[in-house]
Amino acid sequence: MPHAFLLHLTSSDPRPPRYPGLYAHGLFFALLGKLDPGLAAAVHAAPRKPFTLAVLEPSPPPRRGGGGSGEVVLRVTTLDDGLFGPLLEVLLREGADSLTLGDQPYRLARVVATPQGSPFAGHRSWQELAAAPPIRCLRLRFCTPTVFATSKPGRRARHTPLPDPFLIAKSLLSSWQHHSPLRFPETEAAALLTVFELDLELTRFADLRFEWAQAAKGFFPGFTGAVEVYCHNNSLDVQRALGILQAYAFYAGVGAKTAYGLGLTMPS
Amino acid sequence: MPHAFLLHLTSSDPRPPRYPGLYAHGLFFALLGKLDPGLAAAVHAAPRKPFTLAVLEPSPPPRRGGGGSGEVVLRVTTLDDGLFGPLLEVLLREGADSLTLGDQPYRLARVVATPQGSPFAGHRSWQELAAAPPIRCLRLRFCTPTVFATSKPGRRARHTPLPDPFLIAKSLLSSWQHHSPLRFPETEAAALLTVFELDLELTRFADLRFEWAQAAKGFFPGFTGAVEVYCHNNSLDVQRALGILQAYAFYAGVGAKTAYGLGLTMPS
Repeated sequence: MPHAFLLHLTSSDPRPPRYPGLYAHGLFFALLGKLDPGLAAAVHAAPRKPFTLAVLEPSPPPRRGGGGSGEVVLRVTTLDDGLFGPLLEVLLREGADSLTLGDQPYRLARVVATPQGSPFAGHRSWQELAAAPPIRCLRLRFCTPTVFATSKPGRRARHTPLPDPFLIAKSLLSSWQHHSPLRFPETEAAALLTVFELDLELTRFADLRFEWAQAAKGFFPGFTGAVEVYCHNNSLDVQRALGILQAYAFYAGVGAKTAYGLGLTMPS
Repeated sequence: MPHAFLLHLTSSDPRPPRYPGLYAHGLFFALLGKLDPGLAAAVHAAPRKPFTLAVLEPSPPPRRGGGGSGEVVLRVTTLDDGLFGPLLEVLLREGADSLTLGDQPYRLARVVATPQGSPFAGHRSWQELAAAPPIRCLRLRFCTPTVFATSKPGRRARHTPLPDPFLIAKSLLSSWQHHSPLRFPETEAAALLTVFELDLELTRFADLRFEWAQAAKGFFPGFTGAVEVYCHNNSLDVQRALGILQAYAFYAGVGAKTAYGLGLTMPS
């Protein structure tokens, strides 16, 4: 069952962490290692990470020039059914004492795991996601910088910081196929991908902004903003798949480096 | 020699024209027809129009709710060497009397044809364009809604209202190949297209806005805003081509329906 939850961390040091995404990633693996080094190694080695991490703006946001509030809000989502329970267990055990972001100690002040606590938190079973109502229009808001790795032959590392409808749908479908026990049969997934290439069209965007974002060891060009993608295909199966992918986006995020803070996505 | 010039039209009727792009297109062909019906028919039949048209916001802009000023500024560019002279001749001959936009009569108040008169006006010989300095970064501002026709097999009309670097470069190259007497040899153009596909990357955008735009008989999704596209290729020939295309964008515009007001583009 995919989970999304927020960790409110507080520090006596008001300076905000310098590389929040990178540090959060480090913290995640440090915690997992304390719990089960074998699990941590397996997750670390996985080419597709079964979790996402993002650092949210604390509300109210820190005053300009006045330094930070000493509060950091981490959003964590888990896409692997075996990850949520153990992770929460070790968080609650270790968190009261000390968690480290970079070289600053933090204390876990609060865990928010339900939509009542925050619109960024919640959980849905794979069955519930698979039963999402069919849609004709995919509506998403990209809340942290989002980018697609669109590398080219000859070891060319290339990035696409634009809400390309096909790249959005492909990213979600491929994550669903990888993580969901209710994935589509191979032939159906291939057919969906073809339809996405032919029949999706961007029919609106708003608040589209460009931002260089730090993730892992590099900087990436990214976009934030809201989009509406229309599906010209009349097949109910396709519209059902789009409904699933829109609901799943809340947990999986979109694009590259979702385990480092990029691509946090909300159905809208 | 490509020309860009502005026609300041005034009317005693302060209402702004309802479909300015469409009406401007009609006016253009009406004028051409008065001059030379054969030329008008040939231009009308051309699959790629050797001109662009756009309606600019008059400055100062009309007061909100106060109706229009009765002034319309048309920007015309010509990409065919045989078009500018005759067009200006008939404009000056007919314009003092009456030009029709939709069903409203207008009078030609002023022609602005030099950059001293407006940053949207000017002319460059094909030789001057072909000698544009090489660049590594393509910087363009899309001033009117811009969209790419990205139709798909099976008669699927699809549009891409995003500043995709490859689509931008392809649009400019294909227009240059069609209209310029100094076009690249076929094999070089094909090689350039491959490089554009592999080595262009969007490294910044700003003020990106979505807008539905009326052009010809339909509505099209479009974007306006500024972009910066970086070329990872070290070939001087490629950078020379990019320099040419950036300079040429001022006259050719980018994307679909440039003869109806879309895709007005400024090097920036």
